[in-house]
Amino acid sequence: MRRNDLAWCRIAALALFTAAAAPAPGADLRGTGDLGVVIERAAGRVQVVDTTARGSLGSVEGLGDLSHASVVFSRDARFAYVFGRDGGLTKVDLLERRIAARVMQAGNSIGGAVSQDGRIVAAQNYTPGGIKLFDAATLELLADIPSAPGSDGKPSKVVGLADAPGQRFVASLFDAGEIWVIDARNPRAPKVERHRDVGKQPYDGLVTPDGRWYLAGLFGEDGLALLDLWHPERGVQRVLPGYGRGEEKLPVYKMPHLRGWAIAGGYAWLPAVGRHEVLVVDTRDWREVARVKVAGQPVFVIARPDARQVWVNFAFPDNGRVQVIDAEKRAVIASLEPGRAVLHLEFTPRGEEVWISARDDDRVVVVDTATLAIVATLRAESPSGIFFTSRAARMGF
Amino acid sequence: MRRNDLAWCRIAALALFTAAAAPAPGADLRGTGDLGVVIERAAGRVQVVDTTARGSLGSVEGLGDLSHASVVFSRDARFAYVFGRDGGLTKVDLLERRIAARVMQAGNSIGGAVSQDGRIVAAQNYTPGGIKLFDAATLELLADIPSAPGSDGKPSKVVGLADAPGQRFVASLFDAGEIWVIDARNPRAPKVERHRDVGKQPYDGLVTPDGRWYLAGLFGEDGLALLDLWHPERGVQRVLPGYGRGEEKLPVYKMPHLRGWAIAGGYAWLPAVGRHEVLVVDTRDWREVARVKVAGQPVFVIARPDARQVWVNFAFPDNGRVQVIDAEKRAVIASLEPGRAVLHLEFTPRGEEVWISARDDDRVVVVDTATLAIVATLRAESPSGIFFTSRAARMGF
Repeated sequence: MRRNDLAWCRIAALALFTAAAAPAPGADLRGTGDLGVVIERAAGRVQVVDTTARGSLGSVEGLGDLSHASVVFSRDARFAYVFGRDGGLTKVDLLERRIAARVMQAGNSIGGAVSQDGRIVAAQNYTPGGIKLFDAATLELLADIPSAPGSDGKPSKVVGLADAPGQRFVASLFDAGEIWVIDARNPRAPKVERHRDVGKQPYDGLVTPDGRWYLAGLFGEDGLALLDLWHPERGVQRVLPGYGRGEEKLPVYKMPHLRGWAIAGGYAWLPAVGRHEVLVVDTRDWREVARVKVAGQPVFVIARPDARQVWVNFAFPDNGRVQVIDAEKRAVIASLEPGRAVLHLEFTPRGEEVWISARDDDRVVVVDTATLAIVATLRAESPSGIFFTSRAARMGF
Repeated sequence: MRRNDLAWCRIAALALFTAAAAPAPGADLRGTGDLGVVIERAAGRVQVVDTTARGSLGSVEGLGDLSHASVVFSRDARFAYVFGRDGGLTKVDLLERRIAARVMQAGNSIGGAVSQDGRIVAAQNYTPGGIKLFDAATLELLADIPSAPGSDGKPSKVVGLADAPGQRFVASLFDAGEIWVIDARNPRAPKVERHRDVGKQPYDGLVTPDGRWYLAGLFGEDGLALLDLWHPERGVQRVLPGYGRGEEKLPVYKMPHLRGWAIAGGYAWLPAVGRHEVLVVDTRDWREVARVKVAGQPVFVIARPDARQVWVNFAFPDNGRVQVIDAEKRAVIASLEPGRAVLHLEFTPRGEEVWISARDDDRVVVVDTATLAIVATLRAESPSGIFFTSRAARMGF
């Protein structure tokens, strides 16, 4: 009898959902392991997508300025934390397709991370510079860590924030030239370990998938700053002295995203800055071992999860193309033209398909990574970033 | 108004759940990224657990003989496929805590895998030997692949089944001494590529986390069989000729589980057979580089997801201990006694905690991997395997 009541209730609830314009049908009991979001940057909206059905489940509006927005996920894979460029941090419920919580936490922001245990969301800010820690459940502010000043005396912009094992976050200070390791075990009183003089203008950073290494790219000079998170006491080293814009000071249409760096099979695949090349680096000694010629200035260089292929998109004017590198041959094996202004790509968790956003064609295409055939196309308004919930279980996202 | 109705309905539903003995409260809209199951082997039951709350959400009974049971997950992380020793394959709904589907698919079975795209469940069977493919949604039989005969003319037992990229499964035939690569792109007409004479009595196997290598342990002789799934045309090689029971033919209380092998930071950590050692092997050339002395015959050797630590449990009489190896020092740094008859351990997705089953103390303990403190204890009846839904997004599970 109770179960019958319940079943009736479920049916009624489903009917209500179906009848309503929003949230969309399907906002019911379901797994969240195959969900994701697509940023519709101009509309301040995200679409909630299902990678099994290769379709959209609905959308959530009112997220503010989503140019350059990025997303991380709650530990249970139910909620997306969307960082808007305008400093808005929105917790989106993927099951009910609604805003669960939202704070304007800065004037200008560039992303964030979730702590190893899932209980803290950290935001990195441009204006005012600094890092804020929030309760992942409520978005209550737990700590506000001001940034160190740059040479102009203003608080430095914070970039390259990533989570690391041990309830830590790591970030770079663009103007101050520092890397900070933040111990957030007590999130209301975080401890900051400062590494100074790491290089000029670190502009992005990443933590390797195993959580051991933090790498920051430098805008103001060549080379990369490398910190061994197993041994922060050893300080920041400089590696890959030839990595950067180089002496020729080539025009750079878009600084490549470090966060997209592929680390696969013991090698890192890095977008060259300004050059039509992808660099291959041995992660055992951080030396360059090869370069692969590609069709343009690479922006995202992302390994298929099985590390057999590395996919690349490009800056203008080559941003209508995507190339596929065979990781073993270290050569381009396919060139695709999935649409105009390809901004991002995201692999399904085990890599059988990849979702690609083509902003100027208002669509997302889903490509079978074995056959390279398009298996689905979704409408989306100026889509940019695509993020799947499988990120919740990974480090450095 | 509609939303109010809905809210009322939810509250009513929750109240009903709370009042009922089963399913437990919480069988409502929630994420599934932090769920898991604990096998209660003697009771034919699984507990559904929540790794965020560190608690049990309820249990599901009627799963048959769960001695040596193993579990894989649906692509959406909502369903657990439980392989019982008696040949039962049960699809358990983690949200509603009920059996969604169940088939008796063999007389004696030892586990299975889910295809890369999540649409096929494969089961490996002892009696009668062979592999069956099922529709992951309905458990409808799609294909029945009989096994090759061993020297006694009977169908070989199938072991070491794992999923691999390209909609493939790989398995070993114990009696026939073969490794099979099964192309399941058309699951009603799978194609089998046979590798013969791989060694005597392969007894378990694994696919590395990047999906490239298949390794099978040999019961009948020393050494391991290695297949490069990027180049199956190169055939099976033999590696680690000293790996095995060795000339002394030491007593082996329990054959170690290969599936638990840690592959981390470019090294594989293998349980020695019969010896109180863990072997460290360079995965670039599959040569042994070190041995670590441990407290007993290792059974599971599992890397913390950040690869900084490797945790080990042991065969009788040392099965009340768990040791922690520092991956960099290659030495034991801690010995724990979490309970009697430790059968399995499973890390939370990003490794901040580990769940350990202590069968003879009827409990599961949750340990903080940084402090090694016990942070929670759950009651469970003779718990054995522990499996978390984050496996759904990983290869080789």
